[in-house]
Amino acid sequence: MATRKKTKKEDATTMAARQREIAVSEFFSKNRHLLGFDNLSKALLTTVREAVDNALDACEEAHILPEIRVTIEELNETRFKVTVEDNGPGILKAQLPKIFAKLLYGSKFHRLKQSRGQQGIGISAAVMYGQMTTGQPAEVISKISKGKPAHRLKLQIDTQRNQPKVIDDVVVDNKHWREKESGTAITVTLEATYKGGKHGVAAYLHQSALSNPHTIFIFKDPKGKVHNYPRVIDEMPKEPREIKPHPHGIELGTLMHMLEAARGKTVSGFLKETFSRVSSKTAADICKAAKIKGGATASKAGRIGAESLYNSIQATKLLAPSTDCLSPIGEEALIKGLYWLFVEAQKHEAEERKRKKSQQDLFEGGEKKEKEGEEEAPEPVVEKDGENVQMDLQLADDRTLSSDQKGYFVTAVTRSPNVYRGNPFQIEVGLFYGKGLAADDQARVFRFANRVPLQYQASACAMTKAVTSTKWKTYGLSQSRGALPIGPVVIMVHMASAWVPYTSESKEAIANYDEILKELRLAINECGRRLQKFLRRKRKEADEEKKRSYIIKYMDPIGDALQEIIGFSDTERGKTVDSLREILEESRGHMPGGRSNPSS
Amino acid sequence: MATRKKTKKEDATTMAARQREIAVSEFFSKNRHLLGFDNLSKALLTTVREAVDNALDACEEAHILPEIRVTIEELNETRFKVTVEDNGPGILKAQLPKIFAKLLYGSKFHRLKQSRGQQGIGISAAVMYGQMTTGQPAEVISKISKGKPAHRLKLQIDTQRNQPKVIDDVVVDNKHWREKESGTAITVTLEATYKGGKHGVAAYLHQSALSNPHTIFIFKDPKGKVHNYPRVIDEMPKEPREIKPHPHGIELGTLMHMLEAARGKTVSGFLKETFSRVSSKTAADICKAAKIKGGATASKAGRIGAESLYNSIQATKLLAPSTDCLSPIGEEALIKGLYWLFVEAQKHEAEERKRKKSQQDLFEGGEKKEKEGEEEAPEPVVEKDGENVQMDLQLADDRTLSSDQKGYFVTAVTRSPNVYRGNPFQIEVGLFYGKGLAADDQARVFRFANRVPLQYQASACAMTKAVTSTKWKTYGLSQSRGALPIGPVVIMVHMASAWVPYTSESKEAIANYDEILKELRLAINECGRRLQKFLRRKRKEADEEKKRSYIIKYMDPIGDALQEIIGFSDTERGKTVDSLREILEESRGHMPGGRSNPSS
Repeated sequence: MATRKKTKKEDATTMAARQREIAVSEFFSKNRHLLGFDNLSKALLTTVREAVDNALDACEEAHILPEIRVTIEELNETRFKVTVEDNGPGILKAQLPKIFAKLLYGSKFHRLKQSRGQQGIGISAAVMYGQMTTGQPAEVISKISKGKPAHRLKLQIDTQRNQPKVIDDVVVDNKHWREKESGTAITVTLEATYKGGKHGVAAYLHQSALSNPHTIFIFKDPKGKVHNYPRVIDEMPKEPREIKPHPHGIELGTLMHMLEAARGKTVSGFLKETFSRVSSKTAADICKAAKIKGGATASKAGRIGAESLYNSIQATKLLAPSTDCLSPIGEEALIKGLYWLFVEAQKHEAEERKRKKSQQDLFEGGEKKEKEGEEEAPEPVVEKDGENVQMDLQLADDRTLSSDQKGYFVTAVTRSPNVYRGNPFQIEVGLFYGKGLAADDQARVFRFANRVPLQYQASACAMTKAVTSTKWKTYGLSQSRGALPIGPVVIMVHMASAWVPYTSESKEAIANYDEILKELRLAINECGRRLQKFLRRKRKEADEEKKRSYIIKYMDPIGDALQEIIGFSDTERGKTVDSLREILEESRGHMPGGRSNPSS
Repeated sequence: MATRKKTKKEDATTMAARQREIAVSEFFSKNRHLLGFDNLSKALLTTVREAVDNALDACEEAHILPEIRVTIEELNETRFKVTVEDNGPGILKAQLPKIFAKLLYGSKFHRLKQSRGQQGIGISAAVMYGQMTTGQPAEVISKISKGKPAHRLKLQIDTQRNQPKVIDDVVVDNKHWREKESGTAITVTLEATYKGGKHGVAAYLHQSALSNPHTIFIFKDPKGKVHNYPRVIDEMPKEPREIKPHPHGIELGTLMHMLEAARGKTVSGFLKETFSRVSSKTAADICKAAKIKGGATASKAGRIGAESLYNSIQATKLLAPSTDCLSPIGEEALIKGLYWLFVEAQKHEAEERKRKKSQQDLFEGGEKKEKEGEEEAPEPVVEKDGENVQMDLQLADDRTLSSDQKGYFVTAVTRSPNVYRGNPFQIEVGLFYGKGLAADDQARVFRFANRVPLQYQASACAMTKAVTSTKWKTYGLSQSRGALPIGPVVIMVHMASAWVPYTSESKEAIANYDEILKELRLAINECGRRLQKFLRRKRKEADEEKKRSYIIKYMDPIGDALQEIIGFSDTERGKTVDSLREILEESRGHMPGGRSNPSS
């Protein structure tokens, strides 16, 4: 330190000259790992995910059963082109630049209602990442109705000002878009690598199919292989409704600000119109307890008035927030989804291979593309078999589906809605146990928030914490302390909420709120108890089986012994042994002992 | 699902009406956990930390040895008032509103140089949190030089527009501020709880003292107790210099954008002026390889020109980035700091208790406050003892400091600078081993980035990963697989960088970049090897000690045996036994055997 160089000594004036505003786009371009662009393979996944999230949200708001096509093209080893096309309602041309090329712009941030997107950052971040790494603008095509033209815009972000730039703007007039009802397609060229495994795009779509059984996903990977995820449920999910904030979730400073902004309203009117669960009577009660006149002007309440109101609101008993804003997946859909993926999927794979050639045409067939696509789109396997999934399920009274022969067990629990910090949320857990999975591996946990699969940061997530802190030994699975249980098990965890508390902007893990952890544990425990019953029955049967084979093995010695002790004739001995075998056969249905019966 | 209610079906037009811009302040107020305000105790710590970070940065830029006073007052169980005052250069009055009440505003984001703050978010986020939870504006006092008045502003943020609002603006004319040279004080009232433990404010300041040995911290906690952290090194750290970006860290899209913006420059001039490590010759080489004329206009390079330049830059060998922008703590300061905290601190504690009364006056003495404060401010304990710390250290050649008598060992490694994604960084690790700490506990890991202690999200941090993945058994400590080592050990890890890749805006953990992990491991291993030598010596001594006490114990029987075998007289026997003892004493220095010598 003796030889340190002197630099210019700063003072308040020289320092002031360097102070300046930082555009949110500059911030995130430098901190891209916060948005899920920390490495090349994750960048690809994040781009697909943000585009698919938006597509699904748009379809559902327009009450359209979604059909999403994802295509990933390899331009070179580290450069890929991602296209996501939906059959949604389309986007007005004037809105396209801001939606796709401006961070913190959107329709979902300011409302209380379950949706996949919430921040208004994701897709523009993907566009920005593509632009920074390859210099290529994003390409967006959108059509809003049959009679209207489809527009194609090439878009860039001015990162220093967080403003969109339109590079190119043309009408698309090919047969595909002419015939298409409505929809949006976005193409981003970016630096990336394509990987398989649990963090890959295929795994993401696999899990998305599980949480979106009403959606058709068609994915063409960089090798040209087409992956089909059929629609398992032919019905839209319950449409969530926007709700107003609940008074118990409001903080003092925020209340003060809202009062100030409530120009022309009375205090009583302000309370009723701003919040949910506040009737005229409740508003009057709150005002009375706060010693404020209900007819007073809200904007004149001031700090002291606001603090009185705040305390009075906190002390007033109110109905819990409405949960209309939520749309859980539902127990039946969860069970169907798990059943489909882990029991039927192999059958489907075989059929898919047969159809492979014709499906390639969906993408390469040019003119006939869309029409044939719709006809050829893979349908749910179970319908192909001429059976209705719901019939086929034979759900037991305790919401389980199992087959001793096939060795699988599925169940699901959708909890009643609850509230954290004024935000309604609902937890669902599905559990699959099946001999098709490796028995010595740790259970796989699929995490979802508002139907979006979460693939990274498992260890930081409240969902993982809830699973590892459950005592699985009680339910018949082995488990090391603090680890996932061991067994052929998939646990699917879903949180539906009007506001999901992600631990980062990249939406990878759920923060550890106590209320959320509690609900998670209750749902997991219920699934665990049901699994326990199944495993007990399985074990009891296995024990009985063992006992019987043991008896059968000693059938001849038993005969010998009886003959010796009681003095049976050979005929009597044969009759008795046959009767014994018969009794055992009856109590069993079928009997492997037939093979090993030494007397036959 | 059969009874689902129908909601309004949306189309592109109705959806467009709801699209709007989201202010970054709205975004973070809803996502406050991203900034470190997830719970009441963390909110308090984050507020203190952001204010202290800014104070230290300002002092160092102005070459002022920092003296930071932190006061936390409890207003009620969940409401606290935090004040942080520094002796820095002050801030121009016109800049105060934006610096303290506008997110994404600052001087540190756009430069490449080590500093504690980098985002321009932290302190304004604390102001916003205070305002939202208590409705109280923040209060800032600042004075820029002796002759100028001190101004006090009360500030709020308009969260819907991310703009500051000045509530009150007066000149402060009390003796304290009249006599003060320059400095800034910020007061935030917020909802919070005060906690001790490793996540508390006292722990934060304790660790800050370790990484900022040139700083005096004086902390008055809510109970009125004053904690003093003296200055251990009376010299400013090496002042980091701003550097230009390194060409190898630039991406294609960013390069295109920079070329476009380089109005009036030639390509060659652009390369030399924009980047570090590009001489005229290097610029010419790059242009030649890219088949572009160095004298061509940079802004006309276009996409193809930019791509050629980009490829040519990547293929050109360049000097690594300059590391002037870094200011590591240094091995000596690390060793001193650890020594002071874990060996001298107890002495100091005793002295502190004696001085307690007079130190209370620093805060309560009104008029005499500042002047006496300076005289009474605790000085480094070692200087109090009339010794120079550096002399006292007797650092061994291998950069270790140890005492077999006192049973401690300290060492530190400052690695040479390295680069990740074009950003220079430097890793330092200090290690303390001492019998004062619990031998059966896991080692404590203190993490620092640009001298700021990181107290949360240890498990998500590359630093923790580097420590737990080190094979400590090799170095003489026990360790479970993947866990921290066991022993009376403190490991201090510091990353200095022009841009620290935090895993979230709350700056709690370092992202897992390979280059960073590698440097961390190399530094940790070196400390481990040095510890191993110390422990081996300790063990060898312990073994010898054991052997000797064993011999001493049997001194009399040995004497008896010798007498019997060789036929020694009593005198001969006594002489021989004494000689034996002498030899043992010589080889040992001192000898507990003296006590247990049965023949004396």
